[in-house]
Parts: sequence; structure tokens; C-alpha cells
Amino acid sequence: MPNPLLRYNPRRLLLVADLAGTLIFGIEGATAAVSGNLDFLGIMVLAFSTALVGGIIRDLLIGAVPPASLRDWRYPATAFTGGLIVFFLYRFLLRIPPNVMIDLDAMGLALFAVAGTEKALEYELSPFIAVLLGTITAVGGGTIRDIFLAQVPRVLNSDVYATAALVGATVLVACRKAKVPPIWAAILGGAVCFLVRVIAVSHHWNLPKAVSP
Amino acid sequence: MPNPLLRYNPRRLLLVADLAGTLIFGIEGATAAVSGNLDFLGIMVLAFSTALVGGIIRDLLIGAVPPASLRDWRYPATAFTGGLIVFFLYRFLLRIPPNVMIDLDAMGLALFAVAGTEKALEYELSPFIAVLLGTITAVGGGTIRDIFLAQVPRVLNSDVYATAALVGATVLVACRKAKVPPIWAAILGGAVCFLVRVIAVSHHWNLPKAVSP
Amino acid sequence: MPNPLLRYNPRRLLLVADLAGTLIFGIEGATAAVSGNLDFLGIMVLAFSTALVGGIIRDLLIGAVPPASLRDWRYPATAFTGGLIVFFLYRFLLRIPPNVMIDLDAMGLALFAVAGTEKALEYELSPFIAVLLGTITAVGGGTIRDIFLAQVPRVLNSDVYATAALVGATVLVACRKAKVPPIWAAILGGAVCFLVRVIAVSHHWNLPKAVSP
Repeated sequence: MPNPLLRYNPRRLLLVADLAGTLIFGIEGATAAVSGNLDFLGIMVLAFSTALVGGIIRDLLIGAVPPASLRDWRYPATAFTGGLIVFFLYRFLLRIPPNVMIDLDAMGLALFAVAGTEKALEYELSPFIAVLLGTITAVGGGTIRDIFLAQVPRVLNSDVYATAALVGATVLVACRKAKVPPIWAAILGGAVCFLVRVIAVSHHWNLPKAVSP
Repeated sequence: MPNPLLRYNPRRLLLVADLAGTLIFGIEGATAAVSGNLDFLGIMVLAFSTALVGGIIRDLLIGAVPPASLRDWRYPATAFTGGLIVFFLYRFLLRIPPNVMIDLDAMGLALFAVAGTEKALEYELSPFIAVLLGTITAVGGGTIRDIFLAQVPRVLNSDVYATAALVGATVLVACRKAKVPPIWAAILGGAVCFLVRVIAVSHHWNLPKAVSP
Repeated sequence: MPNPLLRYNPRRLLLVADLAGTLIFGIEGATAAVSGNLDFLGIMVLAFSTALVGGIIRDLLIGAVPPASLRDWRYPATAFTGGLIVFFLYRFLLRIPPNVMIDLDAMGLALFAVAGTEKALEYELSPFIAVLLGTITAVGGGTIRDIFLAQVPRVLNSDVYATAALVGATVLVACRKAKVPPIWAAILGGAVCFLVRVIAVSHHWNLPKAVSP
């Protein structure tokens, strides 16, 4: 009898990855709101946007409307839970070491990159587009958060952020092409995304800039 | 014979509320454009965006494409009328006392919250999602206006703005659940949204901030 | 036998106009990224967004999902090619005189205005809406680029930018109404858009501002 953890159910995998990423990104968005001195509602709006806008953009682009996060109350509820955690426990969150936050963020990035790519494949989009959509899902929420805070989105100038999502999504798609079992393709893609991001931060990796005169 | 005003026609109520809100928000967006020293086209673009983007986002999210404001020329025409009013009559608008502008804005907020919630219910979305969509409809346009002007959106830091829309939409949905006749549910929800906003401004209500150390 | 160049094939015209505009706007977005000191990925993201977001918004609004630029790999590939050109050849691009860049930009604007209007007409939207969608297609990408760079979008304060797209789209639609052969309507609309933009820049045309006290 196979290990039940390894029995692959794409919809359920998608849901679990999506909800876990939603909680992490909800907490992150809410933390950014508190740093920006916003009030309770600002915290909730940023938790919602950071957690769900990436997936909403993905669903709009593939024509899956209403988006999963509006059809299924568990998505907004999870994002708002992230906001409430920050609202009530901000003083404890401050004690979390920065590198734990970076790991959590990398985890959210990996989960959303996997979920976004999986859903694009499920809608039978081409591999190239699936990789793009996985990346957009992963970085969309953080981009909206930064736009809301009137900042240049991190995705544009943070070294190796979207790149990690892109690499992870590519690994997932490549594994699926190579007939790797879907559950392993997802785990591998997510792990690569997570590791690329975490190692890039700890080693201060930089992407090259344009060849200037 | 019933009072014809109270004969409920959801589509017509939606249209009237939407168009009235469109005019108010069009004027408001155009006024923000003039304050930002923008020219004729900037005025028109901000009138259009502030008035219509909230509804467009709602329609995209529920899959009602092309959005009502692009299928029906009366929406853009109304928004542009708001822009023209500001363009030609700006000197008179300046004489309007600020509290009248706040009342008008609260009225637009209430109209859009009602229209957005109604439309979500019409598309048979769950009550929770209908409340969210009503709120997004109400605050979406102003959010885009502020993003266009490179400012942190008012919805994030203005006390009790989106909250008023959220409360109004919740009242509407609760009344509908309680079998209140739809027209009264809409009037009640709109009135609550309007009053919460106006009273919050006059009493300088603030939402709590996160519990800090 | 008719000149094959003049044999009208709306889908192919749309594709060629779209891809040419995509390359120009991809180069422009990437150049803005280099000016903003962004790295390789920032260059690619801005090339992609500037080139494709206008058309993606158009496709979302008319319900053509997944958008053409995600269904057809040639769109993102063309945008990324623009990004790569800038990345590797930035020093040569710097030697291009500014007025050539303005001409290229005006060309992109004209191509996108034509492509956007054509596609809206193809989806049987009303002439008024087709003009709006043509304009949104033309200026959408640049607007996102400016929002990403935390600037007030050029479309709001740059004299006669969206106006040129609006005029070109109007000419195209008017010609189609007047039974001008589609290919000539497209050429005429595009030429008018290009000329209005280029002449406006060289003559420092300004749109009027609101009548102030």
C-alpha cells in the first residue's frame, strides 16, 4: 500500500500549498502595514492583498473566474487570520529573528510558485506560460503590497527574488516533462525555489546589471 | 397600488446607484487631478479611473466581461461628464465647503458599496464574498486614483473609510438574509455606510493600531 | 492581381502590429529599468510589463482569456528580446539621439492603438468603447511601468500622449464607419496617432488646464 502522503491529488496539493502560502504572505503583508504605521483596516487590506492578489491575477489571466480566493471563503479567512495574528501579536513577531522571516518568506514564495505553476498546467497552458504564471502568482502579492506603500516593488530591485520563483517553476515543469511523478515534481520545484532564495540572501548574490559604457 | 418608487427592480436600482456614484467619484477624481496640476487629459483619465475602476475590478472578478462600464456607454459618459464639470467649473467647486465634499464622497462610497454588493448577490456569490466585493467596488476607484498620483492609497490610512463600506455591505447582506425587502435592504445598507463614514469624520474616529511593545 | 501587402487579414495585421509594438515597448521598458539602476530581472520584468500589460488589460476587459500574450509564446519572447537587446547593447542605445527614441515610442503607441482598437471591433464592441480600449492598450504598459518605478504615470501629465492614441483610434473607427477598406483605416489611424504625438512633442503642444480662479 503506498504512503498516503505520496498519493497525488493535484487539487488538494494546490489547496494546501495555496493556503499555507496565503497565511505566510498574509502575515508578511500585515507586518509591512504595521511598519508603515497603518491602522487595523490597513493591516487587513495589506494582509488580503499581499496574500491573495498574486493568485487572483493568475486566475483572471487563465479565465478561472470568480478566482479561487473569492469562491472559497477559506482563502480570505486565512489571509485575515494572518492579519489578526500580526494585529494582536506584533510584539512577539518583533522578537522573531530576521533570518526566520526570510525563510518564511522564501517558503511562501516557493508554495505560491508551485501552486501557480500547477494551476496553469491544470488549465493546459504551455510550459513556458505555466512558468510565467507560477512566477506572477509568487511575486504578484508582494508587488501590490509595495505599490500600495508607494515603493518601487521589491521584485524589481531585490536580488534573486522573482528569479528564485522562476527557477523553481522551471524545475517543476521540466520534471513533469521528464515524467517525474507530479508530487515529486512539486516538492522538487518548491525546494529549489526555496533554496535559491535563501542561499541568494545569505550569500548576497546579485544579478548582473546592463553593460554600461 | 404600491408606491412605484418602492417597486423593486434590481437591475434598475443597480444602474441608478452605479451612475450616481460614477458622477460623484468622477468629479472627485477630476478634482484630485486638478490639485495635482494635471492637464485636461489627466483630469479625464482620473475621472474615468476613480469612477469606474472599482466596478471594473468587481466585474472582472465575478466574470462579468466585458464589464458593465465598457458595455454601456452611459458609464464612461457619466464619468467624463464629471471630468468636464470640474474642468469648466473648478473655480465654483472650490467654493463648496469641505464638509459638503465629504458628504458627497460618503454618498458615492455608499452607492458603490450597495451596487457592488447587489451585483455580487445577483451573480449568486456567497454573502461573505458579496460583502468583500461591495467593499472593493466602493474603494477600488479611489485606490487607483491614489496609486496614479504616487501616494499611499487613502483606503490604507484614512480612518474608517473602507470600514464604512464593509459595514454597509454587511448590513445589506444581513437584511437580505433576514428577508427584508431588497429595496429596503439596499437603502438601509447605503444609509449605514453613509452615516458611519460621515460620523467617523466628524468625530475623528480612529481604528486601533497593532498592539506594540 | 491586388498588391499582397494590401490584402487585408485582420488577425495577421493585429499580430504584426502587436509584435512590432511589443518589441518597441519592451526596449523602452528595459531602458527605463536600466535608468532606474535595476538588475537583469528588473530589466526583464519592466520589458514584459511595459510591452504586454496594455494588451493584457484589453484582453481581460473584453473577456479574451487567457490573453493573447499568454496564449502565444511569441509575445513574451518578443518582449524579453527587447529586454535582452537593452541588457547587452545599452551602451549603443545611449548613442541613439533622443528624437529617434521619441519617434520609436510614437510608433509603438500608434501600433498598439491600432491593434487595441482592431481587437475591440473584432469582438463587436461599440465604436466608443473600441476607441477607449485602443487607448488603454496603447498607454496601459507605460502606465504600469511608471507605477512600478513609483512615479506619477506619464499618461497623466505628459502633454498629448494618450490624446494621440485617442485621436488615432477615433480616426480608425471613423474610417471603418465610412466604409474605408480596413487596411487603410488601420494605416490612417496609426499615421494620425504617430503624427499627432511627434508634432506635439516637437511643437511643445500643451493641453489646457482647468479654469482656475
